[in-house]
Amino acid sequence: MIKAGIIGGAGYTGLELVRLLLMHPEVEISVVTSRRYKGKKISDVNPHLEPFIELEYEDVDTKEIADRTDIVFLAVPHGSAMDYVPQLRAREARVIDLSADYRLKKDEYERIYKRQHKDKDKEKRKSVYGLTELHPEVADADLIANPGCYPTGAILAVAPLVKGNEGGGRVKQVVFDSKSGISGAGAEPSAKSHFPNLAENIVPYEVTAHRHVAEMRMELSVKVSFTPHVIPSIRGIPTTAHVFIEENEAITQDEIEETYKRFYEGKRFMRLRKGLPSLSSVRGTNFCDIGFKREEKSDRIVVISAIDNLVKGGSGQAIQNMNLMFGLDEREGLWFPGLVP
Amino acid sequence: MIKAGIIGGAGYTGLELVRLLLMHPEVEISVVTSRRYKGKKISDVNPHLEPFIELEYEDVDTKEIADRTDIVFLAVPHGSAMDYVPQLRAREARVIDLSADYRLKKDEYERIYKRQHKDKDKEKRKSVYGLTELHPEVADADLIANPGCYPTGAILAVAPLVKGNEGGGRVKQVVFDSKSGISGAGAEPSAKSHFPNLAENIVPYEVTAHRHVAEMRMELSVKVSFTPHVIPSIRGIPTTAHVFIEENEAITQDEIEETYKRFYEGKRFMRLRKGLPSLSSVRGTNFCDIGFKREEKSDRIVVISAIDNLVKGGSGQAIQNMNLMFGLDEREGLWFPGLVP
Amino acid sequence: MIKAGIIGGAGYTGLELVRLLLMHPEVEISVVTSRRYKGKKISDVNPHLEPFIELEYEDVDTKEIADRTDIVFLAVPHGSAMDYVPQLRAREARVIDLSADYRLKKDEYERIYKRQHKDKDKEKRKSVYGLTELHPEVADADLIANPGCYPTGAILAVAPLVKGNEGGGRVKQVVFDSKSGISGAGAEPSAKSHFPNLAENIVPYEVTAHRHVAEMRMELSVKVSFTPHVIPSIRGIPTTAHVFIEENEAITQDEIEETYKRFYEGKRFMRLRKGLPSLSSVRGTNFCDIGFKREEKSDRIVVISAIDNLVKGGSGQAIQNMNLMFGLDEREGLWFPGLVP
Amino acid sequence: MIKAGIIGGAGYTGLELVRLLLMHPEVEISVVTSRRYKGKKISDVNPHLEPFIELEYEDVDTKEIADRTDIVFLAVPHGSAMDYVPQLRAREARVIDLSADYRLKKDEYERIYKRQHKDKDKEKRKSVYGLTELHPEVADADLIANPGCYPTGAILAVAPLVKGNEGGGRVKQVVFDSKSGISGAGAEPSAKSHFPNLAENIVPYEVTAHRHVAEMRMELSVKVSFTPHVIPSIRGIPTTAHVFIEENEAITQDEIEETYKRFYEGKRFMRLRKGLPSLSSVRGTNFCDIGFKREEKSDRIVVISAIDNLVKGGSGQAIQNMNLMFGLDEREGLWFPGLVP
Repeated sequence: MIKAGIIGGAGYTGLELVRLLLMHPEVEISVVTSRRYKGKKISDVNPHLEPFIELEYEDVDTKEIADRTDIVFLAVPHGSAMDYVPQLRAREARVIDLSADYRLKKDEYERIYKRQHKDKDKEKRKSVYGLTELHPEVADADLIANPGCYPTGAILAVAPLVKGNEGGGRVKQVVFDSKSGISGAGAEPSAKSHFPNLAENIVPYEVTAHRHVAEMRMELSVKVSFTPHVIPSIRGIPTTAHVFIEENEAITQDEIEETYKRFYEGKRFMRLRKGLPSLSSVRGTNFCDIGFKREEKSDRIVVISAIDNLVKGGSGQAIQNMNLMFGLDEREGLWFPGLVP
Repeated sequence: MIKAGIIGGAGYTGLELVRLLLMHPEVEISVVTSRRYKGKKISDVNPHLEPFIELEYEDVDTKEIADRTDIVFLAVPHGSAMDYVPQLRAREARVIDLSADYRLKKDEYERIYKRQHKDKDKEKRKSVYGLTELHPEVADADLIANPGCYPTGAILAVAPLVKGNEGGGRVKQVVFDSKSGISGAGAEPSAKSHFPNLAENIVPYEVTAHRHVAEMRMELSVKVSFTPHVIPSIRGIPTTAHVFIEENEAITQDEIEETYKRFYEGKRFMRLRKGLPSLSSVRGTNFCDIGFKREEKSDRIVVISAIDNLVKGGSGQAIQNMNLMFGLDEREGLWFPGLVP
Repeated sequence: MIKAGIIGGAGYTGLELVRLLLMHPEVEISVVTSRRYKGKKISDVNPHLEPFIELEYEDVDTKEIADRTDIVFLAVPHGSAMDYVPQLRAREARVIDLSADYRLKKDEYERIYKRQHKDKDKEKRKSVYGLTELHPEVADADLIANPGCYPTGAILAVAPLVKGNEGGGRVKQVVFDSKSGISGAGAEPSAKSHFPNLAENIVPYEVTAHRHVAEMRMELSVKVSFTPHVIPSIRGIPTTAHVFIEENEAITQDEIEETYKRFYEGKRFMRLRKGLPSLSSVRGTNFCDIGFKREEKSDRIVVISAIDNLVKGGSGQAIQNMNLMFGLDEREGLWFPGLVP
Repeated sequence: MIKAGIIGGAGYTGLELVRLLLMHPEVEISVVTSRRYKGKKISDVNPHLEPFIELEYEDVDTKEIADRTDIVFLAVPHGSAMDYVPQLRAREARVIDLSADYRLKKDEYERIYKRQHKDKDKEKRKSVYGLTELHPEVADADLIANPGCYPTGAILAVAPLVKGNEGGGRVKQVVFDSKSGISGAGAEPSAKSHFPNLAENIVPYEVTAHRHVAEMRMELSVKVSFTPHVIPSIRGIPTTAHVFIEENEAITQDEIEETYKRFYEGKRFMRLRKGLPSLSSVRGTNFCDIGFKREEKSDRIVVISAIDNLVKGGSGQAIQNMNLMFGLDEREGLWFPGLVP
């Protein structure tokens, strides 16, 4: 059994790791930390987990966590993970970091997140950007920078067009118009998550400058814009990608389909849809569903992707990465249909 | 024009007073206070009010407010209103208090709200409980204790059965099972109003001991129990009243209908429904819709009432009371259909 | 492997059987019928099931189904099941009927459902009412009448008080005020399920005479009233039980807790909560969560139960029964935490 | 008093006309038709309208309607309006058609709506496209083609950039990504409006070829793409316009603001927002709220518009047009703040 530790187990990302790892046949959760709830039974704080977990939240030092586990998930805020990683790696703990701290190059990170990167060996660590379908090298990594929720859905939506066209160079520009369930904003109540503010509404925010666009640009190497909104739903991110191709770059609906099929062949969590994907089909699962439509007499292709932000967009993908790191089938513990209706 | 002041104009109750008074042909809003937003334009803080109000939030003393207005609405938390009332009444300002401070007898208030009543003339003030349909004496009052949202819907649901039966004494016991939109919990974000906690959920709370039951008992003088829930809606309180009648007290569906019709004759905001009332029909309005059904071979009658908690359950009823205090038709400024769909 | 057949696999109940049985380690789905979708791949009609099921919907005769399966689930409308049961039982197929056809005594059924019971051996068949926690004899049954969704939550809420008090006879009367997610109304669009009619609303219906009350009375043998509502949620039924005890029948909060603990000892899907149960904790699961509160100076106890109407209130409980019929642990295939948030 | 007739008064558009005209001080509703509900009291079919309207639904001939009214609103399906218009105009009735039948040029209409235009005088009629802010000539029109809901929000969002730049020609291409409340799909239940299909979801549809794009292209004369989605809300359309400007066409946030202010000066229902507009601010109102953000180092400007699809996107705008046709202030009957929260 793989012994797993979760640092930051009281937020939505940490709790989703607990929920999913409890169903994983090869994993045993050995430690979950929370400063706020230290000493409390996890299932008392989160009654939906009763009677599945007997552990209490702990607040132990990083050294001890490294000793008690085979893999450590960091479900802590941006800026905190870089405090833990050097200590964990010093003890050769394998680490999957769900924060942004190891996703970008140092200077890019510092520019975007407006803070200094405190890990002086940051660039040496060879962290792998854990977008599993695009980075098979996660299997050999000791440190995974698990992608942001928006970038996961956005990059997977267009990667075959951007990277998979044999002729190459077809895509000129992409605009991602994403809509996210509010769980992406975390477990802490805020004006944004206040029910009367969100119900019967849809809220655009950071419409030209959301931090996640940096990951999209890094991975796609094409002109990218990104506009996020929150929608009155708990989970899920549907992304509408408006893809503009170079003039005189004819491509048909069938050719696009062929491109996607080839690109995602063997990727078990990628589902190409005959029509357009439905958010509800991926609820609670690690799937990324994709559909597309070529606009007639136009340079535009519309691609829709749908993910569960807490699973494929977070904790599920982290486990998918863990599976590969430990030589397991990527589906282990994640292979079940979504909650419909 | 009646000059109106609103003390506490940044919460949902205060803002609903503003929204409604802006449409009132006989009223001019002359002052709105908020400590938090002092000096800010009301329509900057609340963009839906642009360009209807030019005022800024003020933080002025009670004396000044009394001088600048004909009527003062107190939309402040329980426990604060009793600080304002003595000063306002000393200047002969007419007052409608939307808090609980003047609804109950002093000792009852202190027992239920677990605080001392600071107004030493509390009992002398002759405040009138402003459940308009049951208390025509609001027309002569200088101080109105505007009812709680739950009591409004609950009491109106069963008053005809409890008070309007000529034979009298028929009702033995009432259980109110109420469901409230979350706006009743206020404008401040909390765990309760956190979207992921409330959506796809329904939350019972204080199921045997909610403070509002005291008002129901005071008005109905019958054995009353009350269990509230919050539902994933912004506005509205549907109340399901389970009314138990004394054995051998036969009453038919038609007789009940007769009783309700007689009791609410001429009450313009009471709508008796042929079937069961729909919450959406009262959205944004001062109506209280009522329907009922006699259970066969049973001592139970089910009565359903539906109100908008912020209007008939709060600010609308306050204005209805104001209308009567100033000799206007009770419908003035409140006579429009609900927002359907 | 147990070979399972599902007759009526295109509605919510049938699809939930598919979803859950796909995760059951001891079951193989061998046939799923649908007249409407005959010949179509199940996962084409229901894309959330891709790639978990390769089968097509069939429309085969009952004899063939009996031959190809070890257990048949009937997820058909009331009135249809009684056409299948005689044929299936004639071939000694074990049957779990999720309709109402075998829940009540013949004459009661005919009175309530306003149709004749066509199975002339109805009373001889020894069907067992499959409320698993109260009927251990399901283990020996060949024909299970799986309970209605409302009765499951309602009966489990109060059974310990009604049946588990050693002194006996304490409960005088129960009023169930239930709120159901709209999935209980089925997959077919209707005015009731029309989004603008249900969102921001809560709809009481059949407030004195819903058919499910007959099951509650049958199981509880006490004076029972029942009022259902639909709420703007997809899944879940929270039931607020207002329990009235005989005068002079003192019972404390602690004694009630003791009674519930004793009654449900060893029942793995019953979770007694310290506070009040939350619907979201049971989402997607077979749990029934229960909390209660003794009203002071009153004859009333409030008990809240929360179930997922499609799981414990339908397909999950059917599988729980199947587990017992086949000598498996009741948790097999159903033992996972709910989808929170 | 202006006597108004509504043909097709049982759908959402017709009912919204009734709701709004009831509050209009200069209008009396004299006839409302519905074949389905002929002879029924309008307020029996739509209880939220009680006691505001005494009329019954009628099914009278067009001639009679023309005689009994000063203005006729057509709230009928596309394809039906062209049956009524010739008859109404033959009697010199003024007509506001809320369907698509008179919005586009004949051949464009026939191509897009895939039906023949039956009014042989269609092109002679000089119908005016009733996007009030852009077409002051509605004041002199006898036949208004009231715009579609999506085009209203979309065109208003970008018109100042496309038409109001003195230098001209700046905008190269626009992609509208719109999200609509489900009331836009009408009062009739469908799979799309089925609560379990829409709640916790967001549904893209006709992502490259929605019929409304033709109106946008007609009005904007620039390269336009359009992708609609339905969201789990009753009312409202927020549109995110991704506007691409020609290279070397520098424009700052301040210059954009200046352009919008100038363009919409004196247009009372256009509200320019300091930040981004909120859908809830326009709920139930005729306002179109607009906000925008210039993306740095990019050719993209993001403009967000928010309207209530049934008011500014339909019946409210129709009344705004009626006001101008009859020489009234455009605000008459429409000048009230939105329902917040």
